[in-house]
Amino acid sequence: MSLSEQDKKFMRCAIDLAKKGQGRTHPNPMVGCVVVEKNKILGRGYHVYTDWLHAEVIAIRDAMRRVKTSRKSQQLKNCTLYVTLEPCSSYGRTCPCTDAIVFSGIKRVVVSAMDPHPGHRGQGLKILKSHGIHVTKDILAKESMILNKAYMKALSEKRPYIILKSAVSLDGKIATRSGDSAWITSLASRKLVHKLRAQVDGVLVGANTVLKDNPLLTARLSGSTLQPVRIVLDGQGRVLRKSKNLKLFQSILNKKNQTERPYDILVLTQPGVRTESVVKAWGKKRVKIESIPILKNKKLSLKDVLKKLVDLGIYQILVEGGGETNASFLSSGNVDECWFFIAPKLIGGRSAPTAFEGRGINRIKQAYQLKNVTYRKIGPDILIQGQLS
Amino acid sequence: MSLSEQDKKFMRCAIDLAKKGQGRTHPNPMVGCVVVEKNKILGRGYHVYTDWLHAEVIAIRDAMRRVKTSRKSQQLKNCTLYVTLEPCSSYGRTCPCTDAIVFSGIKRVVVSAMDPHPGHRGQGLKILKSHGIHVTKDILAKESMILNKAYMKALSEKRPYIILKSAVSLDGKIATRSGDSAWITSLASRKLVHKLRAQVDGVLVGANTVLKDNPLLTARLSGSTLQPVRIVLDGQGRVLRKSKNLKLFQSILNKKNQTERPYDILVLTQPGVRTESVVKAWGKKRVKIESIPILKNKKLSLKDVLKKLVDLGIYQILVEGGGETNASFLSSGNVDECWFFIAPKLIGGRSAPTAFEGRGINRIKQAYQLKNVTYRKIGPDILIQGQLS
Repeated sequence: MSLSEQDKKFMRCAIDLAKKGQGRTHPNPMVGCVVVEKNKILGRGYHVYTDWLHAEVIAIRDAMRRVKTSRKSQQLKNCTLYVTLEPCSSYGRTCPCTDAIVFSGIKRVVVSAMDPHPGHRGQGLKILKSHGIHVTKDILAKESMILNKAYMKALSEKRPYIILKSAVSLDGKIATRSGDSAWITSLASRKLVHKLRAQVDGVLVGANTVLKDNPLLTARLSGSTLQPVRIVLDGQGRVLRKSKNLKLFQSILNKKNQTERPYDILVLTQPGVRTESVVKAWGKKRVKIESIPILKNKKLSLKDVLKKLVDLGIYQILVEGGGETNASFLSSGNVDECWFFIAPKLIGGRSAPTAFEGRGINRIKQAYQLKNVTYRKIGPDILIQGQLS
Repeated sequence: MSLSEQDKKFMRCAIDLAKKGQGRTHPNPMVGCVVVEKNKILGRGYHVYTDWLHAEVIAIRDAMRRVKTSRKSQQLKNCTLYVTLEPCSSYGRTCPCTDAIVFSGIKRVVVSAMDPHPGHRGQGLKILKSHGIHVTKDILAKESMILNKAYMKALSEKRPYIILKSAVSLDGKIATRSGDSAWITSLASRKLVHKLRAQVDGVLVGANTVLKDNPLLTARLSGSTLQPVRIVLDGQGRVLRKSKNLKLFQSILNKKNQTERPYDILVLTQPGVRTESVVKAWGKKRVKIESIPILKNKKLSLKDVLKKLVDLGIYQILVEGGGETNASFLSSGNVDECWFFIAPKLIGGRSAPTAFEGRGINRIKQAYQLKNVTYRKIGPDILIQGQLS
């Protein structure tokens, strides 16, 4: 087996390890690591947020236990370290991984994806090289980046990875002319949406949807569930003024609807909207309100909304409309994936709302084309998924 | 093998024979027939319109050639006749099939579906029984009825079998806000639509669609193609007034766009609309204009439109919108099948038209539910089909 084939083989082990942290690394990325000596894996590690330690440190400690030597430093001088993401080089909740690697005596480090975090990008590899460590990068980089697509997107583009979901009738309506939308799609489809909600950091809707549909926006699954932050774009403060009458707010009194974050609901509104009474009513620990500049069209600046989310460590969101909110994400190029649940029923009505309203395009040639389209049956419905960027 | 199993076996042969007439029996139904003696098929027949003869007569003649006897009548006295549709009992372009059966001496007749034609319904079997012939009916009746679903529908309900087709974006739009719709779906999808057009008797659209899109509505396939009659609902005579500028009319000068019927275009308009100059310009043989009463909403009475089509021998139509025309068919319960070609692109726009406009339903519970839904990939698009009635 050539060196590059060997590198791929061990990197694949590291990627498989990284996946074990799925759903447990937030807001950090998933990372896996193996330490290899003479073609044999000596140590394994992967990251979960609550354990603090980074994958590299866990793998190095694991390997050290297996090496029979009295020395603490330079124990692993015959080893190669494989890690799915560039090792960190700064102090955060932990010491820099680069320090641990240098201390262990490891002579070669193979890296898959580079870390887009501004505090790390390239720094880690530079430090390793300065200590005479041989560095190989970009081994199975694509796989590692897909693993942390939300994290990669968020840090490199200053916006979360954005999934837009809509539940429509076969004729493209998201509600009847009177606004009735419960339920267009089947129980099976709705269950899948709850699963999806549990996998993202936040679920985002516009103020109209909150006021019209009075939704919970929680992930309702059997057993314990990771709840997403419920994010409301409320430029005019209409939702804030009515918070006491809304299920969204009432629901946070129930412990199972609370997130593991310092807040459950995040309301983004324009500067000057009075927020004190709302925060007081629900408590700082449950409702967070942030000010975002508004544009000429009196809507919140979406660019600033998205930057704020990244700053708050929200790296992946599910946008659930309505039609105007969806359209503003689409027309500004801020949709990565589309999930359309299509129910085999017809609603009709020239005034019934659709999944994308706004102004829309003028010529068919300007249509937003989905890529890597897949489709499958979910109960009686059909789910069409595709990527936009 | 029991008698009923034997009956099914031979009826299936008759159904397979009937299918050989597909596309060639119009306006008559497809019919297949076998004559059986001692478990052996003696004669076979199926109907094609241009040959005049009905399946029963062809099968009886075929059987008679194989029976060695000098007598002409009562030759088939040991035989059973299997036919997919109740034999006719009246003089049309041919003598009644019941006469031929009685003359042949056949002692048992097995029938699949009953003929809904008011001149035949039940009459055929009654006559056979009065001649002492043993009659069994309803063998594989469902299969035979599906074979001629358009004919069955048209004669039993006084309206054609109605397939509604729409080409939409993933977000349910049939055009952009400016009316651009060329092309939402792929070449592969459009080819399938042309195939479908060649299989129906007529393609129906509203006046708005003709004036906005200026369509041909022909079946454009390589090789020679059966053309459907192009039907326009033109209550106000707007299309008639502009006929000289419309591709629909211009296209009939080209021979390959002409139907095998006495006219290519059928315009339905209200009484009092001036039609003489249009007929004169295009010729009686190419354009037919019929008067239909209008309702209080100033629209043509759809019930009368559909009755007129059946009277003209148009038993199966493809409705191709736009949204208001589609909605009037849907809300009046006049859609049998829906074909939705969904392209994986997004158009957006609160004023962009959808496949079903009109007033629409009020509550989700009132939605029109599709049955027997199937879906498949057509090029990059997805075709969802289902039945409504």
